[in-house]
Amino acid sequence: MYLSKHIEELVAQFSKLPGVGKKTAFRYVLHCLNNEEAFSHKLSNAISELKANIRFCEVCNAPNDLSRCEICSNPRRNQDLICVVENYKDLIAIESTNQYFGVYHLLGGIISPIDGIGPEKLNIQMLIERVRSKEACELIMALNPTIEGDTTIYYLSNLMKSFPVKITTISRGIAFGGELDYTDELTLTRSIQSRQPYEQLINK
Amino acid sequence: MYLSKHIEELVAQFSKLPGVGKKTAFRYVLHCLNNEEAFSHKLSNAISELKANIRFCEVCNAPNDLSRCEICSNPRRNQDLICVVENYKDLIAIESTNQYFGVYHLLGGIISPIDGIGPEKLNIQMLIERVRSKEACELIMALNPTIEGDTTIYYLSNLMKSFPVKITTISRGIAFGGELDYTDELTLTRSIQSRQPYEQLINK
Repeated sequence: MYLSKHIEELVAQFSKLPGVGKKTAFRYVLHCLNNEEAFSHKLSNAISELKANIRFCEVCNAPNDLSRCEICSNPRRNQDLICVVENYKDLIAIESTNQYFGVYHLLGGIISPIDGIGPEKLNIQMLIERVRSKEACELIMALNPTIEGDTTIYYLSNLMKSFPVKITTISRGIAFGGELDYTDELTLTRSIQSRQPYEQLINK
Repeated sequence: MYLSKHIEELVAQFSKLPGVGKKTAFRYVLHCLNNEEAFSHKLSNAISELKANIRFCEVCNAPNDLSRCEICSNPRRNQDLICVVENYKDLIAIESTNQYFGVYHLLGGIISPIDGIGPEKLNIQMLIERVRSKEACELIMALNPTIEGDTTIYYLSNLMKSFPVKITTISRGIAFGGELDYTDELTLTRSIQSRQPYEQLINK
């Protein structure tokens, strides 16, 4: 059926958001139509303001309002403990545990030849400069446990060989509340291989 | 944790869309951040363009690009068969059956004292003018089968008493594929009360 071209255009744009299909997009459009001018105005403004004003931290590359982000400029954070993450979403996930007091480095992606993402597209040069400027530091590789994640960790660890840096990865195994018989072989194998002394676990 | 004020503002705005919580809103924000300027620009523009340029049909009140909508200006549509719906979403639902060839009238809501919506807030005057200008017509009340919907139908049918107009409602009963034992008592009672001759059903 025939729809207004303005409605069709907005449906098309909303549909580009992750997880939004035509039906949901249409629902959003109707919501804009049924609400006052002010709602659409605020939403439209907030979207354009974001891209125009957001800055990326000169140290870790996290999006924020200043040239250096809250975490990198916080003196109570351990600046020699750097958690390497793929993107801001992963940073938020780790921050929300409230148990990590180091800083971050956002790669802006992971090495994935199939998607045409090579090391040159990631913020690796920034990380090298960062590590070079320190006497000693630890890099915690908090990348998703996939082939691409592992490739990226391997690549980075090779690059860092000449620096006095300790490289660790977040531990992999069975999630809390998970069930052994539903766990895939790879995870189970890893969790047996990287088994930990019980005392270590209960003293944490 | 601390978030950029631009990010927080956009999360707040996206959260106002129907069915969007903080987490989904944040996902949308990250999508805007990770995509080029052009994506945000188009989305922001489409939202502001919609409210600025959309017009409402002078006959049926449906949102569209012209002063009279495609359906109302279509000579092949039966202009004496008016389907009264609550909003544009319901119009779209009926249009998508491809089986209705009359026109519509959008009330812009239904009578709901609990939400402070009285008859004066609906496009009822427009409907009266429309009916008055015709020699004879049929109003199909296609409102949701709720207390508010029934109240609105009752109110409208009282208003229309002095006009040569036939008032019908869409039939109510058990949905195709539904199960008798899972159907609520009210629906089941109605569907028995408004039972139809079998010949009528198979001849349709």
